[in-house]
Amino acid sequence: MSDDMKAMAGMENMDMAVMQACMDACSACEQACTVCSMQLMDCAPECMNCADMCNTMMRSMMRMQGMTPAVMMAMLDACIAMCQMCMDACMEHADHSEVCRMCAQSCKACMDACMDMKNMMMAAA
Amino acid sequence: MSDDMKAMAGMENMDMAVMQACMDACSACEQACTVCSMQLMDCAPECMNCADMCNTMMRSMMRMQGMTPAVMMAMLDACIAMCQMCMDACMEHADHSEVCRMCAQSCKACMDACMDMKNMMMAAA
Amino acid sequence: MSDDMKAMAGMENMDMAVMQACMDACSACEQACTVCSMQLMDCAPECMNCADMCNTMMRSMMRMQGMTPAVMMAMLDACIAMCQMCMDACMEHADHSEVCRMCAQSCKACMDACMDMKNMMMAAA
Amino acid sequence: MSDDMKAMAGMENMDMAVMQACMDACSACEQACTVCSMQLMDCAPECMNCADMCNTMMRSMMRMQGMTPAVMMAMLDACIAMCQMCMDACMEHADHSEVCRMCAQSCKACMDACMDMKNMMMAAA
Repeated sequence: MSDDMKAMAGMENMDMAVMQACMDACSACEQACTVCSMQLMDCAPECMNCADMCNTMMRSMMRMQGMTPAVMMAMLDACIAMCQMCMDACMEHADHSEVCRMCAQSCKACMDACMDMKNMMMAAA
Repeated sequence: MSDDMKAMAGMENMDMAVMQACMDACSACEQACTVCSMQLMDCAPECMNCADMCNTMMRSMMRMQGMTPAVMMAMLDACIAMCQMCMDACMEHADHSEVCRMCAQSCKACMDACMDMKNMMMAAA
Repeated sequence: MSDDMKAMAGMENMDMAVMQACMDACSACEQACTVCSMQLMDCAPECMNCADMCNTMMRSMMRMQGMTPAVMMAMLDACIAMCQMCMDACMEHADHSEVCRMCAQSCKACMDACMDMKNMMMAAA
Repeated sequence: MSDDMKAMAGMENMDMAVMQACMDACSACEQACTVCSMQLMDCAPECMNCADMCNTMMRSMMRMQGMTPAVMMAMLDACIAMCQMCMDACMEHADHSEVCRMCAQSCKACMDACMDMKNMMMAAA
């Protein structure tokens, strides 16, 4: 069995709509976090970390040939943890910063989309 | 307690030499994977994924103010899984590609450095 | 005059719709190039280079406080050159690869959007 | 003539030591800028922009198969402009921030290494 077939084992039944929604949510979250970091408020470090992780998560989903289900799960867990942390940091400013409020919403949407990916992968396995 | 203090809780006793070694290993692994991907062999997707994750991991360690111990642990687990996968893919070509052999070594060194980070963080907690 | 005011000098009259269109084109091009690179055809190195540059270009537009008009112009020139090169490489496969054809279209759209940014900035200066 | 040969035309006489020094300077500058941005001072936007560009510049040099001399020149010009801007921003804080002083030094070293690359490429053409 070739490397590619090993890598893809357990992924051939994936729901592409769920994966596309997750990639879109990662891209939107990277952008919201990048904009939010420019306020140089105390959530900026969380936003910069979250922006980089969301970009890496999105690219990994576009490069499934170079992923295994186990690595994908670990990446999704890390991305969920990062989005949760950034959302919490931005929610503390949501009352007085519209940018933080929108960033927190993007983080929540990305978290949810990553959880949908996990659930879909577990159902497809 | 401020956001920054919450974020740093449990990290103030970290061994900076262990963290510096991990950042250096991530940087070296990103570079080895980028070079290896240029061979356009069947390990290239794994190498591209690993390069991006190693860069994101390194930057997260440089932005500790925007991390919590739990998020750091999830990121380290994902980076370890990614390096292991890339190492395995490159090891299959290690006999005939010196570039793959060096890439696999960098992945192994990065995995080990991430495990050292995890052990150090658990001891410091 | 503060750093921020210096940095923004000459940018306060920018057309935000043109800039938003450019950021969207950069994001779309990064994604198309990342997908195209997975074919491991001889355009893959161009695609990887173009994907990274488009992401950096997009982020720079989101971080205008840390840009000057001259730096923005140099970045746009580099991004245009990168997109042109990647488009040319992918066009050679456009007849037999639908993915390459779509990648070339995204590169063309990104080039055009970067040129629109340049024209808008020169008109606003 | 294949794509790869076209891409490499004019680059086969390059001095690899100069290119390696430039990649090392880009990597060091990305790291210094990332650390400096964490101070959330008014140079942070410049530092974030410069960090991303230095990483993209470094990776482009590692993926020379997907570059042409003209694109490389445009990228080097953009990287030089970015480093100059970030150096200027950080130099304003160099008296009271050791981190800014070191960041400015890394930007200067990266600028110089990119200029060496340009000179070497013009001599090799």
